[in-house]
Amino acid sequence: MPKTLVLKTCLDEGIPGPEHFEIRESPWPNIGDGVIVRLLTVSADPYMRYRIRSDGDYKPGEPMLGLVAGKILESNLSDWKAGDLFGSELPFTEIQSVPAWKAKTFRRLTGLISEDQISFGVGVLGMPGSTAYGGLVDILQPKEGETIWVSGAAGAVGSTVGMMAKQVFNCIVIGSAGGPEKCQIVKEQFGFDHCIDYKMCRSTKDLVKSLRHVAPAGIDMYFENVGGMHFEAAMQCLRPKGRVAICGVISDYNKSKMSPNKIYVSNMIYTEQTVQGFHCLPWLQGERGQFLEDMALWLSEGKVQVRETVFDGLDSFGSAFRALFEGGNIGKVVINLSPKSKL
Amino acid sequence: MPKTLVLKTCLDEGIPGPEHFEIRESPWPNIGDGVIVRLLTVSADPYMRYRIRSDGDYKPGEPMLGLVAGKILESNLSDWKAGDLFGSELPFTEIQSVPAWKAKTFRRLTGLISEDQISFGVGVLGMPGSTAYGGLVDILQPKEGETIWVSGAAGAVGSTVGMMAKQVFNCIVIGSAGGPEKCQIVKEQFGFDHCIDYKMCRSTKDLVKSLRHVAPAGIDMYFENVGGMHFEAAMQCLRPKGRVAICGVISDYNKSKMSPNKIYVSNMIYTEQTVQGFHCLPWLQGERGQFLEDMALWLSEGKVQVRETVFDGLDSFGSAFRALFEGGNIGKVVINLSPKSKL
Repeated sequence: MPKTLVLKTCLDEGIPGPEHFEIRESPWPNIGDGVIVRLLTVSADPYMRYRIRSDGDYKPGEPMLGLVAGKILESNLSDWKAGDLFGSELPFTEIQSVPAWKAKTFRRLTGLISEDQISFGVGVLGMPGSTAYGGLVDILQPKEGETIWVSGAAGAVGSTVGMMAKQVFNCIVIGSAGGPEKCQIVKEQFGFDHCIDYKMCRSTKDLVKSLRHVAPAGIDMYFENVGGMHFEAAMQCLRPKGRVAICGVISDYNKSKMSPNKIYVSNMIYTEQTVQGFHCLPWLQGERGQFLEDMALWLSEGKVQVRETVFDGLDSFGSAFRALFEGGNIGKVVINLSPKSKL
Repeated sequence: MPKTLVLKTCLDEGIPGPEHFEIRESPWPNIGDGVIVRLLTVSADPYMRYRIRSDGDYKPGEPMLGLVAGKILESNLSDWKAGDLFGSELPFTEIQSVPAWKAKTFRRLTGLISEDQISFGVGVLGMPGSTAYGGLVDILQPKEGETIWVSGAAGAVGSTVGMMAKQVFNCIVIGSAGGPEKCQIVKEQFGFDHCIDYKMCRSTKDLVKSLRHVAPAGIDMYFENVGGMHFEAAMQCLRPKGRVAICGVISDYNKSKMSPNKIYVSNMIYTEQTVQGFHCLPWLQGERGQFLEDMALWLSEGKVQVRETVFDGLDSFGSAFRALFEGGNIGKVVINLSPKSKL
């Protein structure tokens, strides 16, 4: 029988883990008017943290829903055939039927990646990749030679932003990550010019000092993944015509109440600065830009590289999810489901 | 002899007035390679408040510099002739020579307004008009039927924003102003749908309540002239895809230290909200948009109307400037210089 990952209990405050999820067996699906699919990868992402709160939209006893990539097993649709690879948002059920209307929203991955790269479908060619792409290319609009600061630089989104900014747009790229090991990987593997170990900074003032040390003239862009003192430090170092793109505030996710940040709006007037929130959907769904084409090209050229922290099997989801908030991951956290598992 | 307005003493904190300025006589100018001009109007504007601080760029004993409109008296340039009307930024000296390089930056007002409308050159066809135009047309980009909130709605910038939003873009327009008299003018003369008397609101919570009363579904745009609790109330009522344009923070101008505002950046992500600072120069200088043409058209069609608080003579500048911070003005504050004064 196919397995399904179910939310066991909600969590308002604190770090989630295996105890908040459980596995349930599901019936074998009937194909209906669409397709039957097998999930090969499911994704653990920071944004899911909000959704397991008691006021979130994930409900105890119901299947978890999130970003997945997989393979078509059977199809009643002319545009999908058995063996095709796809990315989508689906319940975390290993084998399931998908109705025709929903299958029409699948992203086609066949031709872009091979089956052993299927996890890219929830990473660099999925939500985190499209977040990095939309935020950098369309929201921040980098110019050659500009300086960008990227928080969460060892993570799936941040590392991709930095590699694109460096390799595609020729920017000066500064990261921020937690601990010397991550900072080394950010510089050596992802090619950032500098990386600040924010765990060495006890205050916004400390962080500003570290940032000014590597960017004495300030920063032109800030890509916000974390919130808290990072946002305030970025605003203090932001140059005229500076842009800030906000796609995540992971420092808030495990708190029961959001923390406000200080902003001095008068500083934004003569400097013509912008702070803009955004999410990946316009680019992931192909409404804006050319995400899949551009990113697949940059991957093939080696301008963007992939690093993953891999977990195995649906029942490892809770540990994978916890790793996101304990800083236990480098690059994208993926949960691979064995394509050969007996059901 | 022509008179010049000079800054007497700097002021870091508190409300400026006549005691901070003095009149000095200037020599009759030599024409040089450019023009000799007579100023007919000089402008008192909130942004000048920063510049008379001890760390500002206006220095005691030196002439005040600001937005002016006037007439060419003599010209050595082919593109300007005696009698032409212009707008510019110049020292506040009644009659002065202007070198050719500077005269090339003059805005031509001949053909747009008559000499008895010359004060429009520092108002609706000058800095405040271009601030209103750039902020509304290009920064906020209103769509028909959207709701906009405008603070400082009785002032030169705010009233013009509201009239354009209502008459040109068919928006629902809510103002905010201090006191029942101003609120009545904002609604009756400037045609806003609603106006909130912020002096009746003791807290951000009060202001949010008043705003929700007239805009139960929230606001799509906020035009920021004042700062403080207005900014926070606007962010609390801002709808998805909401935009905030920041051009002034008058509540800060008389303090020695700027006050920070609270912002919850996580609220901006899924709502795709934007906060953007800007100033008028790109539109005033003709680098962006078609400010002079569009605004002169809307004026002639009666879509935008002008209301002024008029002071007479250079020596009234201090009182005019003070009125800006005491709420003593409705519409644009202008200082008219008699075109017939003996020199």
